[in-house]
Amino acid sequence: MANSPSGESMIERIIRILGAFSSERPALSVAALAARAGIPPATTHRIVRALTDQRMLEKDGAGRVRLGIRLWELASRGSSVTTLRQAALPFLEDVQSVVRQHTQLTILQDGGDVLFVERLSWHGSIANAARVAGRLPAAISSSGLALLAFGDRARTEHYLRHGYDPDAPWARMSVAELRRQLAHVRREGYALLDSHVVDTTSGVAVPVLGADGQAVAALGVVVPAGQERVGTTVPVLQTSARGIARRATELGLSFNENTGDAGRGTG
Amino acid sequence: MANSPSGESMIERIIRILGAFSSERPALSVAALAARAGIPPATTHRIVRALTDQRMLEKDGAGRVRLGIRLWELASRGSSVTTLRQAALPFLEDVQSVVRQHTQLTILQDGGDVLFVERLSWHGSIANAARVAGRLPAAISSSGLALLAFGDRARTEHYLRHGYDPDAPWARMSVAELRRQLAHVRREGYALLDSHVVDTTSGVAVPVLGADGQAVAALGVVVPAGQERVGTTVPVLQTSARGIARRATELGLSFNENTGDAGRGTG
Repeated sequence: MANSPSGESMIERIIRILGAFSSERPALSVAALAARAGIPPATTHRIVRALTDQRMLEKDGAGRVRLGIRLWELASRGSSVTTLRQAALPFLEDVQSVVRQHTQLTILQDGGDVLFVERLSWHGSIANAARVAGRLPAAISSSGLALLAFGDRARTEHYLRHGYDPDAPWARMSVAELRRQLAHVRREGYALLDSHVVDTTSGVAVPVLGADGQAVAALGVVVPAGQERVGTTVPVLQTSARGIARRATELGLSFNENTGDAGRGTG
Repeated sequence: MANSPSGESMIERIIRILGAFSSERPALSVAALAARAGIPPATTHRIVRALTDQRMLEKDGAGRVRLGIRLWELASRGSSVTTLRQAALPFLEDVQSVVRQHTQLTILQDGGDVLFVERLSWHGSIANAARVAGRLPAAISSSGLALLAFGDRARTEHYLRHGYDPDAPWARMSVAELRRQLAHVRREGYALLDSHVVDTTSGVAVPVLGADGQAVAALGVVVPAGQERVGTTVPVLQTSARGIARRATELGLSFNENTGDAGRGTG
């Protein structure tokens, strides 16, 4: 449908344009947008105009383009992510009020990426690389380890064989080490990673287990390295994770990606 | 571009399809989706397939369609709404911990709609019609009155003359009464509406004022009717609204819709 000369559909191009924005670059000139999206400037101009007419994009006074509020509204209204974060928010607040550090809820996407659904920042707390709707590789975040360890076995195995690149600049473990880590996380019931994302911080995370015993999400905190206080933090996280799981089940939420098993979809 | 026989662009059709979902109807069959979007079933099928391929939509085990997590991610990452709600969240928590009722942050859209950016629900608190990314007519919500009273004068005047329909089923005031209400809100610095949305609840809201003295957002609570305790609630809301305004200014956030004044856009 509506294929360009290169055979790329209009929908793919729209997604490339929307995907060019980030928390670090929320506003782009049309030229910069074209470059980042890899779409010819004239075509980018035309699509931007159409998206702006429909308020999926907005232009500021300087002519720079940013994501439109209408897009956020359409994408959030009725989204399972909105439902999950709304259901989980009171429990995240409970954790934050006790642990007094960044508290975050994540889901696994594309097999090996941790997607941040919600993050509560503690006034004056330490640096944290994560942003809402941002991603981190699963293998360098405690939440990712919890999601891989307690997620679908076949999917985790697929990630270990094909998805994880131990030579990636961010990678810290060989495949064998990662396997050992995941076995350890399964045994202990929580994941602890120190100084992986930021030198001075550690992450502690537990799975939010669905009715099928698999992780639908992970609940974690980021604390200054050395202040993990696992004996307190883990039970607090596990308690709230159970609360989130209960609400998620009541709401029929499932975030296991469809791997062809038709029975897995939520009703 | 890519116009259908009816002259409607692909982008308009995509938006009609995305807009067919709601918090109440998060999953739809393709037939129901076609009916709600007002697009022929065969065309809807084709667009749904393309959007599903790109993971903007997802299909569940029963073949029903819902908004995709990837869409939420694209729309949220770098969105000014995400930035605002993230900046405002600690202040909303402060209000909630003191007032112990639903606490919400809203912005004005399309001149006369209140869009809910964030809502913190209090465990066991009273019914509340608002949902994140949902809307209410400005004239029946205390947040809407605060936004209209402290928003752009020309835009509010336009709303009073052309946007507000006193004969709408939800309307409770004549235009003259609404004008008096807005003048009252301006004078008092807060809006109070009892039993407008739900019989047993009242709303109390204050504007979040930008550097130009105009409301960029409204901060409000929904409380059981008769428990407004304005003498406490309003100062609490005003204190937190100042905190949110400070952060919004630091972040360069502005939610005043572009009314042709190029100087108004944020940098």
